[in-house]
Amino acid sequence: MNLKLNLEKANIEISEDYERALSIFDELRENKEEFTGWVNWPCEFSEELFAELESKAAKIREMCDVLVVVGIGGSYLGTAAVVQAIAQREKCCPHILFAGNGLSGERLARVVETVKKSNVCMCVVSKSGDTLETKIAYKALRNIMEGKYGSDANNRIIAITDAETGALRQDAKDQGYMSFEIPRNIGGRYSAFTPAILFPLAVIGINIREFVQGGRDIAADTEFWKELGIKYALTRYELNKAGKDLEIFEYNEPSLQLLGEWCKQLFGESEGKNGKGLFPATFLISTDLHSLGQYLQDGKPIFFETMVVINEFDDDIKLPNNMENGLAGMSLNEINRIAVEGATEAHSMAGTPIIRIEMKEKKEYSLGQFMYFMMMTAGITGKLMGVNPFTQDGVEQYKSEMRSILEGVKGMK
Amino acid sequence: MNLKLNLEKANIEISEDYERALSIFDELRENKEEFTGWVNWPCEFSEELFAELESKAAKIREMCDVLVVVGIGGSYLGTAAVVQAIAQREKCCPHILFAGNGLSGERLARVVETVKKSNVCMCVVSKSGDTLETKIAYKALRNIMEGKYGSDANNRIIAITDAETGALRQDAKDQGYMSFEIPRNIGGRYSAFTPAILFPLAVIGINIREFVQGGRDIAADTEFWKELGIKYALTRYELNKAGKDLEIFEYNEPSLQLLGEWCKQLFGESEGKNGKGLFPATFLISTDLHSLGQYLQDGKPIFFETMVVINEFDDDIKLPNNMENGLAGMSLNEINRIAVEGATEAHSMAGTPIIRIEMKEKKEYSLGQFMYFMMMTAGITGKLMGVNPFTQDGVEQYKSEMRSILEGVKGMK
Repeated sequence: MNLKLNLEKANIEISEDYERALSIFDELRENKEEFTGWVNWPCEFSEELFAELESKAAKIREMCDVLVVVGIGGSYLGTAAVVQAIAQREKCCPHILFAGNGLSGERLARVVETVKKSNVCMCVVSKSGDTLETKIAYKALRNIMEGKYGSDANNRIIAITDAETGALRQDAKDQGYMSFEIPRNIGGRYSAFTPAILFPLAVIGINIREFVQGGRDIAADTEFWKELGIKYALTRYELNKAGKDLEIFEYNEPSLQLLGEWCKQLFGESEGKNGKGLFPATFLISTDLHSLGQYLQDGKPIFFETMVVINEFDDDIKLPNNMENGLAGMSLNEINRIAVEGATEAHSMAGTPIIRIEMKEKKEYSLGQFMYFMMMTAGITGKLMGVNPFTQDGVEQYKSEMRSILEGVKGMK
Repeated sequence: MNLKLNLEKANIEISEDYERALSIFDELRENKEEFTGWVNWPCEFSEELFAELESKAAKIREMCDVLVVVGIGGSYLGTAAVVQAIAQREKCCPHILFAGNGLSGERLARVVETVKKSNVCMCVVSKSGDTLETKIAYKALRNIMEGKYGSDANNRIIAITDAETGALRQDAKDQGYMSFEIPRNIGGRYSAFTPAILFPLAVIGINIREFVQGGRDIAADTEFWKELGIKYALTRYELNKAGKDLEIFEYNEPSLQLLGEWCKQLFGESEGKNGKGLFPATFLISTDLHSLGQYLQDGKPIFFETMVVINEFDDDIKLPNNMENGLAGMSLNEINRIAVEGATEAHSMAGTPIIRIEMKEKKEYSLGQFMYFMMMTAGITGKLMGVNPFTQDGVEQYKSEMRSILEGVKGMK
């Protein structure tokens, strides 16, 4: 286990609901409910699928210098989080670029420029095949690729979508795109181990077998869950019941920023319903100690902190000889770690409950364990709160308002 | 005025405290209190200082391809926010890079690589001259520059710090660095119009006269403040009294992300004390509608939304002809704006108070107005809440814990 969980400073009693959490965990593993396909997915992952992902990724890798990944929400954040955390260590692999994750004209104009002047492939990820942001970027970039490559553009587009339904699947069939399926019973924010995320990772040379193995090992470790794992979900639930409305995910590496965004979607979208839920925020140590630090120390105590700490790094800097106070020669990552301990002490003394999750290193296997751990936690806490953590009906409401405004705008033209 | 404020959907009565807010505003302008130097600073800005900033910036601009700005908190976020929002439109100017804004060994190692292989100057920003993060990066990078440039390194380092005190001022005197002063009665998060931010902006070709003029014009517009301006502060205060604990700053351009971080520091550090304060969070439309959107629509209603919307853009994309549903040919920025309206309708219908701030464009003058507007708002709301919005005593506590842990570590060695 490359993950350690420390609940000592959470300061909350969790015994009361332990049995209930355990039975939720057991039921999730029985996989009977809608959209719980993710629970056993890493363990059921076939050698055939690995081989297909890897061979097709190798083909695409050789064809391009830039891979544009088009997707939003669950079809974007998991991939972007792993890419940012691991970084591209080898120059052999295409540069990865994200598009369709918003509606900024300025941003898409910049991607268009890159697509025009680079050797590109495009991976379009959308479960429904009908998400507006994705569709706009996909169609705009496809036009440019067709202008550049003619009918060969079809060999440079990969569709990752539902096996049967939706416009993107239809395009894949009509144009002969390379394609993968997003399993129907896995929702976007729980899709970390599906081709939606694994394929683009594989193209840029990230070891997807290690990543899935991380998820697989933690999923199968029943003892871990019973003794400790489910207690994070329970602790979050009890802290929420005790009046904490915010969970602040903290990390001490800037390259975990998008993993923080991934956590925000996972928990916000799983729990934020029926007037319930912990509002998820993020905080970068030590950067944000110099901005939001004052609030955490002395503001309204409506939050608890979940610190995600990395223990080993490939890169480091030795402090220069001209540092005073005996700091010369110390490792910067060591000082960074001391900032985490300093914040823990100071915030604990101010009465803030603090949960710590330690990750061995920022690599595939550990990230796989972490992401599965968080998905299971979101599932259990959501159930404890009495909401369905696997739906997202609220997301539809702004879309329907937007559609009616669009109709009005078009009517005026 | 390039800024419009719309409080119609805030749904709160503000008449009760209007007179109190007005007298706070008047008192702030009298500039008697400690750390309120920022209030009249843009109006008092001298032609001599402009000329000095511009001529020295021109000199540095010609000397380097990369400008490394070393600073954290208020000595980092304002600069980074303006740079990200405006972007570097002209290739003539050095690339800007930030360091010393954290303790990641991995991150600093990457900056070291760039400094080794580029033609660099370094601008070190620290009011006290004693901030750990800044000091480590400054000394590490100075060593490399001395190795590369010998004694000429001193001509490539700019110190922006207190006029008299601190180690950085001492170094500037000893080594003959180019230098600027951070006024003693202006705190970091209120330093938007001081050399701390203006000098690096000027080096990379941003029009600092326009930026300061924006601050100047809004600062001097007494009618605006009396009729409307102070009402944002009042609205925030009343919403907080009515039980809202979070303000979510929303924007529909990814290049405003760091302006959001700047707002988080400004408000969090000004108000988060004595167990009070609005917790500041950020949200990107439409990206985050696909992640935190569910929570905003249907989660625990502990928040209100402040939408910052840009009206005009230089870059845009026309939707491709193969878009169905009559969207072909529409402007992407127009669709983006409709997403804002759709979210406003949907969230209003769910009962969420919504404030709207419209900015004409993402350029110097408008950004200057916006930043001054937010600083004055933070000052007034903090005072209404009964806290001192210009101090940050809580920031010291983790530093003292950190120092004692460091002592222990060194003792063991």
